[in-house]
Amino acid sequence: MMKLYGYWRSSASYRVRIALNLKSIEVEHISVNLKSGAQLEENFKDLNSQSLVPVLYLEDGTKLTQSLAIIDYLEGLYPRPALLPDDPVLRTRIRAAAQTIASDVAPIQNLRVLKYLKNPLDHEQDDVDQWARHWISKGLESLEGIAANNKDTQYLLTDEPGYFECVLVPQIYNARRFKVDMALFPNLGKIEAACMALPAFDKARPENQHDAPL
Amino acid sequence: MMKLYGYWRSSASYRVRIALNLKSIEVEHISVNLKSGAQLEENFKDLNSQSLVPVLYLEDGTKLTQSLAIIDYLEGLYPRPALLPDDPVLRTRIRAAAQTIASDVAPIQNLRVLKYLKNPLDHEQDDVDQWARHWISKGLESLEGIAANNKDTQYLLTDEPGYFECVLVPQIYNARRFKVDMALFPNLGKIEAACMALPAFDKARPENQHDAPL
Repeated sequence: MMKLYGYWRSSASYRVRIALNLKSIEVEHISVNLKSGAQLEENFKDLNSQSLVPVLYLEDGTKLTQSLAIIDYLEGLYPRPALLPDDPVLRTRIRAAAQTIASDVAPIQNLRVLKYLKNPLDHEQDDVDQWARHWISKGLESLEGIAANNKDTQYLLTDEPGYFECVLVPQIYNARRFKVDMALFPNLGKIEAACMALPAFDKARPENQHDAPL
Repeated sequence: MMKLYGYWRSSASYRVRIALNLKSIEVEHISVNLKSGAQLEENFKDLNSQSLVPVLYLEDGTKLTQSLAIIDYLEGLYPRPALLPDDPVLRTRIRAAAQTIASDVAPIQNLRVLKYLKNPLDHEQDDVDQWARHWISKGLESLEGIAANNKDTQYLLTDEPGYFECVLVPQIYNARRFKVDMALFPNLGKIEAACMALPAFDKARPENQHDAPL
C-alpha cells in the first residue's frame, strides 16, 4: 500500500487526500508534525530535502513530492474518475485556475513565509494576518470572476469535482483561518458547499484526520 | 498565428518563450510593460483579470493563462519534441522539480510581493533583496541536491532539455539579478550552460526580446 506523509492542517496534504478519495485509492496516512518541526528532522529530509509535505511513498520506495505533481501522477495511474477533462482548452483553464491557488496564493501565505515575516522581519501578528488575507483575497477574486461567468456548471467549468476543487477547498479552509470574508466570493462558496456534501471531501477535511487535535 | 502577451523580464513569460522555441512554434509577441503598470489597465485585465503575464491568445480568441498550464497545453497540441518523458515516475519528478520553482520560489520573489514588502510593510531595499535571495536559495538548494545525485544525464533527469529547464533557466536569471551566489549550485549551473548553448534558449533570453531596453 502507498503511504502519504502529510499533516492534518497542511493544505497541500489536504489536496492530495481529496484526489485519493475521489479516485477511491487507499493509502496509509503518516503524520509529519509541522508544528513541532518534524519536517526539519534528518529522517524526514531523507524523504524530501525540501522539508515540505506531502510526500507520496510508493510500494517500491519511490518518493514523489509536490501536491499537483502527485495528483497528475494519480490521474495517469488511475484515470477514472478523471480529475481533468479531455478537452485541451478546458483542461488548460482548469490547470490554470488550480495554479492560481497553488502558485500565486498558497506559497505566499505558507507557514514558513509567515514565520519569516515575524523573524527576521519583525512583524506583529496583525501585519502577518493582513498579509495572508491580502494574497488570499487577490487570488480568490480572480477565481470568483471565472466562477461568476460560468454558472451553468456546478463546479468550476465542469459538472464533476476534479483537479481544481482539490485545490480550492483547502484554500478556502485557509481563507477562513485568516478571517477572509468569504461572503465576497459567493460563487466559489457554492462550489465549496457542493464539494463538502460529498464523502470524498468530507473524509479529507483536516478535522477528520487521525493527527488532528481532539 | 497565436499571440503571446509577455514582458522581456518576466520569468513566467521567459518559460513559455523557451517552450515555444523548443517546439519551433511561431507566435506574435506582444509586450505588456509591467514596469509602467500596463498589466493593471482595463484592456489587459480583459485578457487576464489576474493582471499577470503571460497570456497565450489563440487564433479563435481563447485566452490561456499560467505559464505551466500553457506549457502543458503546448505539449498536448504539439507533442514532438516532448518536454515531459513518458515514464510516469520520471514525469512526476520533473513536474515536481518545476513546481519547486513555479510554486515555492518564483511567486514569493515576484515583483508584486517585493513591492508589498516596501509598501505597506515599509522595508528597505536591503531587506527586500535579502528576502528574494533567501527563497531563491532555499529552492535552488533542494534542486541542486537532485542534480548532484543524478549526474549521468546532461539535463535534470533527462538527456534532452524540457519542462524543468523551461522553468530553471528563468529562475537562474532572477537569481543573478538578486546576486545569489550561483557557485553554490554547480550542477544547476552546468544544466544552465548546456541550455544556453542551444538556440531555443538563447533566442528566449530577456535581452533578446524586442521590448528589452537597448
